[in-house]
Amino acid sequence: MYNKRPLILISNDDGYDYNGIKSLIKVARTLGDVFVVAPAVHQSGKSSAITFVNPVRTIKVAQEPGYTAYLATGTPADCVKLALSQLMADNMPDLVLAGINHGYNSGLNTLYSGTMACVFEGILHGVPSVAFSFGDYSSDADTSVCEPVVKHVTERVLKGGLPKDVCLNVNIPKVDGGFKGMKVTTGDMGRWVNEWEHRVDPTGRDYYWLTGEFEIADKNEGLTDYYWLERGFVTVTPTHVDQTDYESMSQIADLLL
Amino acid sequence: MYNKRPLILISNDDGYDYNGIKSLIKVARTLGDVFVVAPAVHQSGKSSAITFVNPVRTIKVAQEPGYTAYLATGTPADCVKLALSQLMADNMPDLVLAGINHGYNSGLNTLYSGTMACVFEGILHGVPSVAFSFGDYSSDADTSVCEPVVKHVTERVLKGGLPKDVCLNVNIPKVDGGFKGMKVTTGDMGRWVNEWEHRVDPTGRDYYWLTGEFEIADKNEGLTDYYWLERGFVTVTPTHVDQTDYESMSQIADLLL
Repeated sequence: MYNKRPLILISNDDGYDYNGIKSLIKVARTLGDVFVVAPAVHQSGKSSAITFVNPVRTIKVAQEPGYTAYLATGTPADCVKLALSQLMADNMPDLVLAGINHGYNSGLNTLYSGTMACVFEGILHGVPSVAFSFGDYSSDADTSVCEPVVKHVTERVLKGGLPKDVCLNVNIPKVDGGFKGMKVTTGDMGRWVNEWEHRVDPTGRDYYWLTGEFEIADKNEGLTDYYWLERGFVTVTPTHVDQTDYESMSQIADLLL
Repeated sequence: MYNKRPLILISNDDGYDYNGIKSLIKVARTLGDVFVVAPAVHQSGKSSAITFVNPVRTIKVAQEPGYTAYLATGTPADCVKLALSQLMADNMPDLVLAGINHGYNSGLNTLYSGTMACVFEGILHGVPSVAFSFGDYSSDADTSVCEPVVKHVTERVLKGGLPKDVCLNVNIPKVDGGFKGMKVTTGDMGRWVNEWEHRVDPTGRDYYWLTGEFEIADKNEGLTDYYWLERGFVTVTPTHVDQTDYESMSQIADLLL
């Protein structure tokens, strides 16, 4: 399919020094040339935030045959936008990979995810894009167990492509004894409860930490990412950007017009 | 429908001192009791970013019968989460309103919008939610022309409710001589081009400003928000959170499994 080695753009939200992106780079370099633009500062939970109040700056941290890496002072979305529109010049990548995130981006959490922002930017620029996330939230998580999954999915996507405007959200459980398999799933639209911890500082003033527990919505349907992650399966949720609710358009017209 | 005056939560991304939120508060106070939690610092383009690296603090800036207002040091999503889970205590609102944003949140731009983040949090907490945005991007935009639209939509939604998990994204054009009418639309999934302006600072170092032009995707279909905004109509796009691409699930299963 390729006359030359495929060109793969990689970004994440955790930053360049995390094991997750190191695993992703390691696998991608066996499959193609790699170009990294990662946030200079940890950017978890930044969703598709973009930076326009301040300019974005970059620093090149690696350049050798088949491998280039930059850090950028913006969000994950900024990183991919900057890569595709400026830093990669006229060489559009064949694939955008994001992650491997330390922690799931399953279900509703795609809404808050900087990792998913990377792949949304990828498909908005017409490039097939895959996000990987791992069910170990620690900053020193051993993501090497994810590498065979990354290799399998990346090879298949490089070979077969993806439907227009659809990216993949791949979540990988931390399982003793190995994964049970892989499932194509829907995102569980559960909800966060007990979202804040209220504290009082030594001077008597209130402050709040965002925390909480995720309440799964439809665990028993057997279709959702959470359902299969809990059972030891890798999940792949095809994901798009458009959030128009086509189904309710006539009902809303009846209400308002 | 209500035994007492409805309780309306209001937030935005521009901050408490903008004309847009002042117009929204003004209209809402004619229809119910109002509780405001607005960002303490301008938060445009923050998407559904959430704050968990630092705690969030609040300051109460108004309290009188039927009206309470806080500023919070977080994102728009934080503001609504904090209102619903902590600051409003056991009084869940009947409605969440966001905006009026200075600038459209039409089409693809819902992805980057802090205003839309407010209403996503609203429906995730089970509260009917409506975002309003105005086609004047200046910080001193005169949003009073939007007030009849806010009143109409808010009254109808308070009376008729909204479908579960669906919020409304209302965009209001700046039109000499008044709006032509109102349309229920889809979001135009166009794309941004020429996204960055590359400059060199006085010491010779590169920096990049996020900018660009929005390229409309399907202007001629006659269904999208951009199409009708350009023709002077107020647009209402029913919007949901779930981004699963159900249609491609079997194709992705064929590719990967």
